[in-house]
Amino acid sequence: MQKRIALFGSTGSIGTQALAVIEANPQLFTAEILTAQQNDELLIKQALQFQPNTVVIGDESRYQKVKQALAGTDIKVFAGEKALEEVAALDCYDLMLAGIVGFAGLKPTLQAVEQGKPVALANKETLVVAGDIVMQKAIEKRVPIIPVDSEHSAIFQCLVGENLNPIDKIILTASGGPFLGKKPNFLVNVKRDHALQHPNWSMGAKITIDSATLMNKGLEMIEAKWLFNLKPEQVQVMVHPQSIIHSMVQFEDGSIKAQMGLPDMKLPIQYAMAFPQRIVNQFPRYDFRKPNTLTFEEPDVKTFRNLALATEALYKGGNLPCILNAANEIAVYAFLRNRVGFLDMTDVIERTMNKLEFIAEPTLEQYFETDAAAREFAATLIHL
Amino acid sequence: MQKRIALFGSTGSIGTQALAVIEANPQLFTAEILTAQQNDELLIKQALQFQPNTVVIGDESRYQKVKQALAGTDIKVFAGEKALEEVAALDCYDLMLAGIVGFAGLKPTLQAVEQGKPVALANKETLVVAGDIVMQKAIEKRVPIIPVDSEHSAIFQCLVGENLNPIDKIILTASGGPFLGKKPNFLVNVKRDHALQHPNWSMGAKITIDSATLMNKGLEMIEAKWLFNLKPEQVQVMVHPQSIIHSMVQFEDGSIKAQMGLPDMKLPIQYAMAFPQRIVNQFPRYDFRKPNTLTFEEPDVKTFRNLALATEALYKGGNLPCILNAANEIAVYAFLRNRVGFLDMTDVIERTMNKLEFIAEPTLEQYFETDAAAREFAATLIHL
Repeated sequence: MQKRIALFGSTGSIGTQALAVIEANPQLFTAEILTAQQNDELLIKQALQFQPNTVVIGDESRYQKVKQALAGTDIKVFAGEKALEEVAALDCYDLMLAGIVGFAGLKPTLQAVEQGKPVALANKETLVVAGDIVMQKAIEKRVPIIPVDSEHSAIFQCLVGENLNPIDKIILTASGGPFLGKKPNFLVNVKRDHALQHPNWSMGAKITIDSATLMNKGLEMIEAKWLFNLKPEQVQVMVHPQSIIHSMVQFEDGSIKAQMGLPDMKLPIQYAMAFPQRIVNQFPRYDFRKPNTLTFEEPDVKTFRNLALATEALYKGGNLPCILNAANEIAVYAFLRNRVGFLDMTDVIERTMNKLEFIAEPTLEQYFETDAAAREFAATLIHL
Repeated sequence: MQKRIALFGSTGSIGTQALAVIEANPQLFTAEILTAQQNDELLIKQALQFQPNTVVIGDESRYQKVKQALAGTDIKVFAGEKALEEVAALDCYDLMLAGIVGFAGLKPTLQAVEQGKPVALANKETLVVAGDIVMQKAIEKRVPIIPVDSEHSAIFQCLVGENLNPIDKIILTASGGPFLGKKPNFLVNVKRDHALQHPNWSMGAKITIDSATLMNKGLEMIEAKWLFNLKPEQVQVMVHPQSIIHSMVQFEDGSIKAQMGLPDMKLPIQYAMAFPQRIVNQFPRYDFRKPNTLTFEEPDVKTFRNLALATEALYKGGNLPCILNAANEIAVYAFLRNRVGFLDMTDVIERTMNKLEFIAEPTLEQYFETDAAAREFAATLIHL
């Protein structure tokens, strides 16, 4: 039996790579649901190739175009944000690959968990914003959440077979991004195109900017806390510019396990889809026979203050990670449109965190309210 | 219920560290059998402290001394090589820790496997010499062989929970020993005391010399082949002078898992004894927060020819690893007695390998005959 994949965010970086895995392994996978926000052209092309049960185009104005292009096929076509959630409740799939970027990924992911469907989670905001609610639901429904982020995939791989053994701490590795070693006097002048040049990883625009500011690592710390049921002090970050060690776990006996490889998202995507099985592939491989040097250093949180803000959110919890995430999304998209400078992003986030009311144990509704309010306030700061 | 440990080689480097683990964890372990070859003083002291069921002194001339010292206790005392094997057949223990150095460890280990007792294997010669016979017996009796060598422990730890996933290759790391980067014109003058100064690891004399010649890594390649059921070409060696990554496994999907920590035998000893559980301890820990650099380079097999000879034995199999091991034991003990030079050891091994008859599929008896003949021939080469 093939595993039937519901691919939420099929036209993005994660989604297209996941489809490449499905295409390469037709005996293991079929694509049953494809969704996209804007990219109707690619969604249509993907649908015609993979013949899923259902597609959803998020932007309702593009519904007719998709519907017409798929006329004459058996593929069901829906549109709109609400449809994403409804389609996640369908029974036609075995695993959701949650590849939607940002807060928008939360509702469909929660719906999948509610339906008892395993989730391969690429959308870190789901856990950053509402990790308590999502993980509690996953435990209640006995639903595995398999991370796709390379760092969390590394930790997940290191924890396989270690159920009996408590974690002492995890060490998330960070490439340091394109501005490793730079100081504020340099960063103040950084522009969009420069920040989009990541030295190691090929990823979407939002996460590439988050890597340049180290916010990505901050969000990952919060994500890791929920995924692996850790205390904030058990989550450590080390800069490792070569991006070969993808992250590490230290157990209570002091032994450290690490997962390593070339920086290539195809591997953790494939791993999450096929888990617990590993699939042979032709991906390029790290070769230890070449002389190699791997280095580690502490992150410069005085320069990359986003990481300090995220650490504060990690420790304080409540709705603060939700505020952090919402303000960051607004700031990053403004930076991508050349509306704010590189260092301004941090100020927007910090001022939003200081402004909004702290709620220690928010309900899901309060998370949505917090998200909306934080976006609104952050937008006023940059006159959007 | 405590795990009852039969500690073969209790006065050596592995044995004394294993007793420290037992002493630190009395709720988990008891020592039921202690054996030593020569060191009667320490054996007596250990027996009085740990009150085992049985002790064996290998050197029969020391039997009366041990017997008298333990008079008035319930501890049974035996002597001689045959007694080691007989005691391994007792039912008073749950796990054998095979810490005897060299070929002498083979018979008691085989006996434990024959009795269906799990073995924590520190004696690599057991598998180097007769890996086919030992592993076949272990499979037949469903006996787990848990490696104690830090490299094989690393691989074993990386393989936990990965039963479904075939290994692409393993990468054994080598510190390179005290003479890393040196050439034959330097090595020809190396003396015993210099070769005993290992840069990273504190170990017994035999294995420390084997580390300096890289024979230790060669023996480990052969051991790994048997332990993990690999083809010779799946076993790779990389020099990693910091000895932090203890070894790695690459799976068929290209993902690499590594086990890391300070170079300290206490951890793999404890792991093998407590497996599958990890025990909290106070051992010093590797700290990634300090700036760190880990390097990797290919071994210099032209200078350290022992590794080339061992690789030949790995590929050809049969009784060649047995010949290699026997000649090496003779050569190392001669070097430790200042009877041969550092580079002479390799010549002794090579000439012995060339001299003795190759047997492709030896019986256990033929292994013993090969071992005896190889020792005899090697000894003639150095006029012992």
